Order: sequence, then C-alpha cells, then structure tokens
Amino acid sequence: MEEKCISNSRRCYKQWFGFMVLIMSFCVSYVDAVWPMPQMISSSMARYTLNPREFLFQYSSGSSAQSGCSVLDSAFKRYFPLIFTDYTRPRQHDEWFRFPFTVVVHVERAECEDYPDADSSESYKLSVRSGQAALRAETVWGALRGLESFSQLVYQDDFGEYFVNETEIEDFPRFQFRGILLDTSRHYLPLHAILKTLDAMSYNKFNVFHWHIVDDPSFPYQSSTFPDLSRKGAFHPSTHVYTQIDVKRVIAHARLRGIRVLAEFDSPGHTQSWGKGQPGLLTPCYKGTVPSGTFGPVNPANFSSYQFMTRLFKEVTSVFPDSYIHLGGDEVDFTCWKSNPDVRGFMLKMGFGTDYTKLESYYMENMVNITKGLNKTAIVWQDVFDYHEKLCCSSLSVVEVWKGGCYLCEVRRVTKAGLRVVLASPWYLDQPGPTHDWARYYTIWPLAFKGTEQQKKLVIGGEVCMWGEYVDATNLSPRLWPRASAAAERLWSDERMTSSVIDAYPRLVDFRCRLLRRGIQAEPLFVGHCRHEYQGI
Amino acid sequence: MEEKCISNSRRCYKQWFGFMVLIMSFCVSYVDAVWPMPQMISSSMARYTLNPREFLFQYSSGSSAQSGCSVLDSAFKRYFPLIFTDYTRPRQHDEWFRFPFTVVVHVERAECEDYPDADSSESYKLSVRSGQAALRAETVWGALRGLESFSQLVYQDDFGEYFVNETEIEDFPRFQFRGILLDTSRHYLPLHAILKTLDAMSYNKFNVFHWHIVDDPSFPYQSSTFPDLSRKGAFHPSTHVYTQIDVKRVIAHARLRGIRVLAEFDSPGHTQSWGKGQPGLLTPCYKGTVPSGTFGPVNPANFSSYQFMTRLFKEVTSVFPDSYIHLGGDEVDFTCWKSNPDVRGFMLKMGFGTDYTKLESYYMENMVNITKGLNKTAIVWQDVFDYHEKLCCSSLSVVEVWKGGCYLCEVRRVTKAGLRVVLASPWYLDQPGPTHDWARYYTIWPLAFKGTEQQKKLVIGGEVCMWGEYVDATNLSPRLWPRASAAAERLWSDERMTSSVIDAYPRLVDFRCRLLRRGIQAEPLFVGHCRHEYQGI
Repeated sequence: MEEKCISNSRRCYKQWFGFMVLIMSFCVSYVDAVWPMPQMISSSMARYTLNPREFLFQYSSGSSAQSGCSVLDSAFKRYFPLIFTDYTRPRQHDEWFRFPFTVVVHVERAECEDYPDADSSESYKLSVRSGQAALRAETVWGALRGLESFSQLVYQDDFGEYFVNETEIEDFPRFQFRGILLDTSRHYLPLHAILKTLDAMSYNKFNVFHWHIVDDPSFPYQSSTFPDLSRKGAFHPSTHVYTQIDVKRVIAHARLRGIRVLAEFDSPGHTQSWGKGQPGLLTPCYKGTVPSGTFGPVNPANFSSYQFMTRLFKEVTSVFPDSYIHLGGDEVDFTCWKSNPDVRGFMLKMGFGTDYTKLESYYMENMVNITKGLNKTAIVWQDVFDYHEKLCCSSLSVVEVWKGGCYLCEVRRVTKAGLRVVLASPWYLDQPGPTHDWARYYTIWPLAFKGTEQQKKLVIGGEVCMWGEYVDATNLSPRLWPRASAAAERLWSDERMTSSVIDAYPRLVDFRCRLLRRGIQAEPLFVGHCRHEYQGI
Repeated sequence: MEEKCISNSRRCYKQWFGFMVLIMSFCVSYVDAVWPMPQMISSSMARYTLNPREFLFQYSSGSSAQSGCSVLDSAFKRYFPLIFTDYTRPRQHDEWFRFPFTVVVHVERAECEDYPDADSSESYKLSVRSGQAALRAETVWGALRGLESFSQLVYQDDFGEYFVNETEIEDFPRFQFRGILLDTSRHYLPLHAILKTLDAMSYNKFNVFHWHIVDDPSFPYQSSTFPDLSRKGAFHPSTHVYTQIDVKRVIAHARLRGIRVLAEFDSPGHTQSWGKGQPGLLTPCYKGTVPSGTFGPVNPANFSSYQFMTRLFKEVTSVFPDSYIHLGGDEVDFTCWKSNPDVRGFMLKMGFGTDYTKLESYYMENMVNITKGLNKTAIVWQDVFDYHEKLCCSSLSVVEVWKGGCYLCEVRRVTKAGLRVVLASPWYLDQPGPTHDWARYYTIWPLAFKGTEQQKKLVIGGEVCMWGEYVDATNLSPRLWPRASAAAERLWSDERMTSSVIDAYPRLVDFRCRLLRRGIQAEPLFVGHCRHEYQGI
C-alpha cells in the first residue's frame, strides 16, 4: 500500500482491494448463503439430500391459500427449475414418491388474486428439517420471499448432488419499499429486458418496479385516451412503444413475483416528448416578444393543461393498480415560463410576484389533488418538497430524495415535516464509476441522521435508479447486477448483521454465480470464476 | 454551462455533452458511413437498389484468387447475411438473375491458405457503379477489408429496400498493428465470447488478437507438453481450459477474418498459476532464513527454468503460427528474489551486485533468445525496455508501451533506441470511467511526440487492452464496444480526416446500430434509439 499507484497498473487494483485477494482463497460456505441476509437464520451441519424426482411443493392443510392460488401455483412451477438447475427429465405421472422431500406452505390470508401493495406483509418463517421444509407466512407475498430463501439454501456438490442443510429462518424486510427504477424514455427497453429485470429483482427481494416510462426524449406509453402521445412522441410509433397488452404483461409478471409497478409520468418538466402529440400542452418559449419555436415545461397557466392531465391520469391510474403514482416534479427550468407573457400574466393574477417556485408548487398541488381524487398516493421527487416546504405541505405525503450532497440532511428535513421518504441518492447505479463500487452501495446507512424514532419510521425505503442516458438492453443487466444486490441487502436486512463489506464479499460472489446460473447477466466483482459461466453471448 | 453540476443531476450529462444533444437532431447520413473512415472516399447521390435475390460475389477473371480460396469463399458466405440483414429466403439453384448486382473481387497475390502476418498488405480499392462493385486488392486480407467497407455502404430505407450509392474508395491502414487484448486468466472467457469478439474486431478492421492467455490467477491453456499446467493451474481442469482444438478454432476463426493471434505467455512475473503444475519453476520466498511457503516470479537462477521455458515455447510457437510472440516481462516484484539465498548467490556469481533489474534483464534476454531461436519476433511490455535501456538492447525489437503518465515520452525513448512500438497506454478500456469516454479514446494522437520521421515509422500501431479483473463474458461486449471502435478509427484512418469528435459522433452512433444489428452487444453512446434494438438478453 505504500507504493504509489501507477495509472494502468494492474497491481493498483490489488492494492485497493488487497483484502479481497485474501478473501478469495477462503472457502465460500454454502450454508447461510441467502442474499439478502435474513433477519434471523441458524443452520446446522446436518444436511439432507434432495432428489428432484422426489421433491414436492404443497399447501398445508390449514393454509388459506390452496391449489388454484395463482401466485403460489406459478411460484412452485418457477422455483422447481431454479432449485434443480440442471434437471431436465420431465416428471412422470406414475412416478412413485417413496420419501419425497416436501416444502409445505402455509399462508394465513390468501390474497392470491390481489396485487402486492404498500402495506403488504412480506414476513415468513422457514424451518428445514429432515424430509420437510415448513414455510409459514401471513400472505402469499411473504411465502414468495420464503420460497426464494429456500431456493438459495439448496446447493450442489461436485458430483451434481443436491443438498439442503437443517435451517431455521425468521425473516421480514427492514424497509417496506425496495425499488428499482428503469428509464424507458432515454432508451427504449424491449419487453424481455424489463421482464428479465423483474426476475432478477425477485431473486434479490426487491418489491417495487418504478417505471419511469416517459420523459423528454420519447413517449413510449401507448395511451388509449391520447394515442397521439406515442404515435408522435415515441422513437418509433410501432416498434418502440408499450401497448396496453405490454403494460398488462409487465404488471402481471411483477405481481406473480410480489413486485409492485409504480408508474411515473413526470411533469411539468421532462415533458418535451409529450408536446409532439399534444399541441398546446407545453409552454411556448419567447425570444423577446415573439415565440422562439421551442417549448418549455407543461403550461401551468392554462386550465386545459389540468383538464388533459386529469384525463390522462384517469387512464393511467386505472391501468396501473398500485395505490401509489409517481408525479415526478423534478428539475423544472423556469427560463421558458419567465419568457412567456401569458405565464407572467398568470403569475401576476395569482399574486406569485416573481417567485416561480410558487408557480411550480401551484402546479404540483393541482397534480397531487388530481391523483388524490383518483384514490392514489402521490410520490414526488424532492424538488417539490424543497419548494413546497416554504409554502404548504398539506397534500404531499411521499417524497423521493435523489440529489447528491448531504442527502441525509434532506431526509431529516422531509421526515421532520412529517412526510414519508424513499431514498434514492446513494443508489444512482447508472452513474459511471469503478466496477468495485458495490461496496460503496453496500455501506449506506439510510437512518444515520439525527431525528426522532417517529422520523426514522417515516423512511419507508430506498430505490436503485438506472437512468437511461447511457443504458439500454445491451448493458442494463451487467450494470445493474450484482451492484443493485448490495442495495437489496441494505434495504432488506438488519444493518447490524450486514455492516461488514468483508463478510459480504464471499456471500455476494456466491450469489452472483447463482444469478448467472439463473440466466442473469451479472458482472463479476473481482478475479475468479463460477462453476457455470455466462453462456448467453 | 455556468451552473454548477449537482451530483446525480441528469442535467449534468447534458451540460457535459450539450453538443451531443445538438447533434442528435441532425440527420445521420448513410452515405460515407464507413467506420473506420477510409483514407479516401467519395460518393455521389446516385444510388442503386440491391435485390438480395439478384446479388452475387464473384472473382474477376484475372484474379489470382479464384473459387476455392478459403478466405474469400467463406467471406462471401459471411457477408451476404451481413449485408441483407433480414433476408431469410434461401436462394434457389434455378433462380434466374436478370440484372444481378455483382461484387467483382480481384486479388493480386493469392495467399488463401496463409495466415495474415506483420507485413501483410491490407490496402484495397473499391468502386461502386451501376450494377457492379469492383474490389481490387493486393492480398486476400485487403479484399476482406474492402468487403467490410462495401457491406457498410449498403443501407435500408423505411420500407426495407436495400441501397448502395455510387462510391469510390481507396483505402489502407495508417498503422500495421491494430490489436485488442483479452485476458483469459483473471476470468475464463468461454470460446463463444472470444469468437464473437473476433467477429466484432473484423467489423472494426482490427487485425491482431492479443491473447493474454495465462497469468497469476489461472492457467487455462492446455499444454500437450506440460498437461499439469492447466490440470492444476486452471480454475477448473475440464471446464475452464482451452484445449488444443479450442486454440485451433480461435486461430482459424481469426485467420478467416484477417486477424493475427498473438499469444502472450507472460513471465517471469504474473506466473503464480504456473507454479501449481510445475513445481520448482517459481522462486521460493524466504522469511529470514526459512522458506515462507509462498512463491515469487520464475526462478531466474535455475537453469531448469530456461529448459522448461524452451520446451514450453517450442510447443507454443508451433501452435500459434504468427511470427510474433509476446513474452510479457511486466511488473516483476523483486521482494521474493531478494529474500531467496540461491538467487542472491546467483546475483553475486553473475556480478549483478544488488541491481535486480540486471537479473530481470538477464532473464528476459534469455527468453528473447529462446524465441529468436524458434524464429519468432519477441514483443515485450515496456518494463523490459525500461530496465534494458541502461544495459543492452541488442535482442529487443518490439516494445509495448502500457504505463500511464507521459506515454508519448516513453514512445519517444523507445523509438530513439531504434525499437518498434505498440501503444496501449491510452486504450485501457477495462478501466472504469464515464461511459461517454469514447471521445477520450478517440482523441489520442500516437505520433504527437518530438522525433524524426524514422522514429515515427517505428510506431507500428496500438492496442486496446481489456484486462480481466472485472470483466468476463457477462460484460465484455458492452464494455468493449463501441468504445474500442474509437481506437479502431484512430489506428486505421487518416488523423487529419478524423480529428473531430463532433463529426465522428453521428457516424459512430450509426455504426453502433450496425453492430447491434449484427448481434454485437454494443452499448449506447447517448440518448437515442436504433431501428433494431438488442434482442439478445
């Protein structure tokens, strides 16, 4: 470590990550290798052989959910090949199970056809003994988390035999909201890339897909009320759009994995693409006394803007079942508003003087009220709170903190105002940076601010943001995984049990190989290998 | 640009790359869209329709190469679907070509069964007129480059029709050596990942695959002379090795694309994995007067080391046909040598005093002589020159400059000593960094040092290095492409015609979409879309 690091020196990596080289030679224990770490886990060296031909999932007799429960029936089907990764022989109907190993699932409240939502319980208990694993959960969503944990307890030896150790788990998430944002406006993401991300999210126990579906560059959401929005605002009106069927498929795929779909229709800024299919919506910018031909944010001075938004959000809130809706509200540039005589006139009329933050607040207040009228909880980017704080916060409820700098100061301010917080600032994974950054994303302490217990409870979770400036289907997966897994453990697990990067490293290396084995293009953390390398190129 | 860039601000990107946003709205011209830019290209607006069912490659009557020429026969087969990307209907034997468009290829010297090598000509002339493209080249390697250029001249309109414009090209590479290094020791790269990289290299007119095949972490090369090297030194003796068949396949795949395979067996450092299968090869390190149990570089004091190397390199130089062999020689840590009493005794005997650079030089001199005896030109990392400079340079001939800092100072020193240079320093693409780095790799001027014309001529080329600490098959392609394409143009094209990042940007965006269409997982440069997005996840 004394030597100066020469640029380009391969040894540099080793200096920075000397400890990793040390760890690499340690034997990775397969026992306890559940990622993210359960709240309580204990296991013994007693291990049981699992035979794929003598393995069953079944409902306990007293379970509310029984055969026919869509969420669990499909989970059983999904987890069989995830557990027995190289078993291809189909099971025969007449097969005789002498000593089947059975995963018995008991669910208190069957919500088999519901959607996971903000207040869904995800807790579960798992007890793996000889011949049986007992999985108990309040809800099907908790049962899904338990199945994922069980699947990660199973491992193969060098001869291909499957084992599971005697294990007891009691588990629940530290934070209720554990999200990943994908941006389908800066680059269009084909459906398969979104579905694959949902798969990987479920392996990591993420539970919110924040779909930043539209923005300045393109409007791929095919609206049934306003079809011109995508017809004129998408990169291509047929190939680069999400049809209603596509959206339904995403929501269904997410639901079966216990993942909420939180749609964001960001306004009044970030709306350039909206203007193409909805003339009159955006503010015409002026150069002196004449329109310059360019447009700014949504025109907050026109009543018709709110009429349009009401109709659009009526559609959107019926398409997306989640109780939350993301209204954006970030990065509004006032230049164009200031240039426009109508907007200036409106400012005067409203008594806003020259404080355009009041105009932005006025606009967002209207938006929050529109969605409130549609029975949705609005979530907004912190900008709205930053302006609003001075004015009124009555209608705000959830604020997403995204700016860098002292983000915990902002968390403190927002919670002090009694509002809920989702923390995104430290998890901007689209940002370029050293590959071994996972440790940076791991050592984030979302509650390390001075505040009351009540304030801490208002931090409902966090979110990984994968903005699309430099990301599309070609590099989404390796940029997201396994770095997002670091955030996943921070958001699910007990901080005291998971504070050490050194302890986490071999577990994450192991988990990353598991992701590869499941077809997720997760990049390596450092020198080494997986038994099954990625074959998908 | 006046505004301070807030961390996490999406607008930051736009500030940095404001000019790109401007460019994005420009129409990308499909004419002249050959990457890397030919030395001379002119085209008119006259365009001809190409019909895949009436399209032929053929040899000119006076061409030395004729039907049966393996390199060109297989290139014709390969380029048909690369040109007509969505044409699936097989051609019928009885099909009647009324007005076939014919690419007529004329080659001066047929070297159809040879390997491309250091002195192979790659120049070509291409003339596209009504109904015919005439392609003339000295060698089949030049013809390959011309076919690639022709394939890039063809474009599709919105209705799927294919066109090519009237075009004249006279082309040759600026530098003879245009390489990409892959590291298969820090992570094992499955064969398909290497072959895919060779495909992409040929689209970029790269012509040297520098195969850094072994290193400290693993020894995947399956030696027939010393099978224990991979049996004990690979990550896995069966799944994580390159068999002789694998190596032959890589060399054959490369040859058909006009790509040399330059193997590197780096020593005396970077050899930890060698020690496992070849006891006695590495220097035992001492703690005081007793061996510590760890090992250092190859033991330069043992005659048996040179005997082993002679046998190994005899095999290696017969397996790899290229006239170059890379001997490594970088980053030798003297600590272990210094601790070992036998090595100290040898130093005394040789009169090296305490200058271990003399010992390193002595070792490398022996290695260079061994390979010279096997009729190979040795290439070494700059470290060898840096030590050697003071001693003697008689046996050195090609030096690869890789260290950061003032690398052109090093290029000047090496060429002043009359040695040839391959420049790698500015193209370490494995290094983490902002995604829009391509511009950094583009604006490299390898000859911008003070030196004679003779010195400039000694700069034979450059190389992109993709070290494997953080890279395997999951992220190799998006990390390499299209950033390596920036280096490709610098190494092939006229610097005066390709000095502007702004001019290059829309061409590279277009070329990157072409790479996607050909199945190369090339990441995006900025916001936007390709007609055909990547579907491979």
